[in-house]
Amino acid sequence: MLRHLVLVVFMFAAALAQAADPLPNWRDGEVKTAIEDFLAAVTDPAGDEFVPVAERVAVIDNDGTSWCERPGYWSTQFQVQLMASMADAGKVSPDTMPYSAWLADDRDALRAYGYSEAYQALIRSYAGMPVTAFTDSALAYLDRASDPRFGVRPTDLYYPPMLELMRLLEAHDFQVWVVTGAEQQFVRSFLEDAAGIPPERVIGSWTPPVYGEEGGEVTMVRGDRQVYNGHQHKPANIELRIGRRPIFAAGNSNNDQAMCRWSVTGPRRAMALWIHHDDAEREYDYDRSTEHIAALAAEHPWTFEVSMARDWARVFKHDD
Amino acid sequence: MLRHLVLVVFMFAAALAQAADPLPNWRDGEVKTAIEDFLAAVTDPAGDEFVPVAERVAVIDNDGTSWCERPGYWSTQFQVQLMASMADAGKVSPDTMPYSAWLADDRDALRAYGYSEAYQALIRSYAGMPVTAFTDSALAYLDRASDPRFGVRPTDLYYPPMLELMRLLEAHDFQVWVVTGAEQQFVRSFLEDAAGIPPERVIGSWTPPVYGEEGGEVTMVRGDRQVYNGHQHKPANIELRIGRRPIFAAGNSNNDQAMCRWSVTGPRRAMALWIHHDDAEREYDYDRSTEHIAALAAEHPWTFEVSMARDWARVFKHDD
Repeated sequence: MLRHLVLVVFMFAAALAQAADPLPNWRDGEVKTAIEDFLAAVTDPAGDEFVPVAERVAVIDNDGTSWCERPGYWSTQFQVQLMASMADAGKVSPDTMPYSAWLADDRDALRAYGYSEAYQALIRSYAGMPVTAFTDSALAYLDRASDPRFGVRPTDLYYPPMLELMRLLEAHDFQVWVVTGAEQQFVRSFLEDAAGIPPERVIGSWTPPVYGEEGGEVTMVRGDRQVYNGHQHKPANIELRIGRRPIFAAGNSNNDQAMCRWSVTGPRRAMALWIHHDDAEREYDYDRSTEHIAALAAEHPWTFEVSMARDWARVFKHDD
Repeated sequence: MLRHLVLVVFMFAAALAQAADPLPNWRDGEVKTAIEDFLAAVTDPAGDEFVPVAERVAVIDNDGTSWCERPGYWSTQFQVQLMASMADAGKVSPDTMPYSAWLADDRDALRAYGYSEAYQALIRSYAGMPVTAFTDSALAYLDRASDPRFGVRPTDLYYPPMLELMRLLEAHDFQVWVVTGAEQQFVRSFLEDAAGIPPERVIGSWTPPVYGEEGGEVTMVRGDRQVYNGHQHKPANIELRIGRRPIFAAGNSNNDQAMCRWSVTGPRRAMALWIHHDDAEREYDYDRSTEHIAALAAEHPWTFEVSMARDWARVFKHDD
């Protein structure tokens, strides 16, 4: 009887501890404390750093920040596969540049051709496709795809600590936006299911679609030129799409530096996180194109380095 | 005593009737009933036409639909005034085209020059201005401006029936977006106060802003070219910005026809309203550029003509 009582008390205490910690996949330490302090400060109506609900905007990068970006970007791999299906249908010539280089995954040839123009050619290869067909293709691709190292679906590569953080921000009445350099419609196709972020809160590199009507029939198809959403374009597009300066940002590379700097240098109390890939065992250890965001984290008191090895109890949901 | 009791009962009944009618400025009739029926159908989880909360997207035009657009567009008048201040500062030459035509309000000269290019020149006249300064100028302008006929501020020209409708849609868990051909940042500057629509829910003709940083200092300034959000671009930009097909739309002219048609021809139960200016006494009576939206209303069972004279108990809050 006493044993049962002890067990019940223990389970109750464990449940309470769980309920009390909304970031169970973050290890105790400076970063976790800083997140908690930031959220407490901006939501305390009696405090000096209170931020009204309407201005609680969080912007979070996708590849390498919210999910794994190695060994390659899923968005690019999908688009190459979609282009390949257009080649099969005779709509693009697979033997000409830059399509041949995309199909061979020949990075040197793509760089020599000009990566930006090669990317626009990829976009053009499926221009005119109905937007709904593009979404269907993306979902079918993700359903088939499997990560070569971990053997799981791409959408199982979202980081539980980041998903927890998104939910904690929302619980504090933040609007959480995902701001990515990847193809916007591709990311939108799965992000609501995979990470709880609805399409209207996804800002990616976008291709203006084209509306048409004829005899009462309406069409909405993919356009033929993409607007890039990386580097300095991230804060510019945040201003364009949201119209408010964020007070929270998270990113993992120089591509996110401007967005993070824009967020932490506004008139309000703010916070930025640099997700640092330093965990070869559970994920990857690399520092490609990180010197500017690392410098921001070193220099700015509201910007923190998140060491995946040190700060995350789990990196993936498949971790023990 | 009995008289008091009767009075209390009467007041209670009146309060109840008010509470029971969330559209007090809409007169009873076919349109009001259709709005109520539509909202009941899409929010009834047991019904065939139920629409999940995430997909309840409403798109509403601004000029001539949500507020008065006569005698001229406030957005254009503001931009001409801002350009004039640039001319005073020696940044544009007021004697050269198209600036001279804007300053003289010479529509024929603007048309001869090419309205679209004349408009881009207006945008360029204040390119490089900090976005915060643009918003400050807009608010200062609106604070000074007064309608020549009604003697009220521009923001007092929002139509109470449309504001009620926005709130009723929100009460049914709709996201309400304002989709306008007018300058996006101008509309954002006041719309949250004037109509309860936050900046992230405003899609207008936009000018991509420009982010810069130098020595840790960051800047966000106006860009120099505008992306048009009218006619077929409205549904295309709705797809781009929201990523969902709306199930409710409202507009007043051909400029809104495509957006309305896109909304009512989707897979879901939907509704569109054509706000018809037929009330010379309380507002204006005109049919400029309405034949296509009028045809849609005549042809499509889910699209309704709203007669301002017949369907609205009040057009403006200054009406009795």
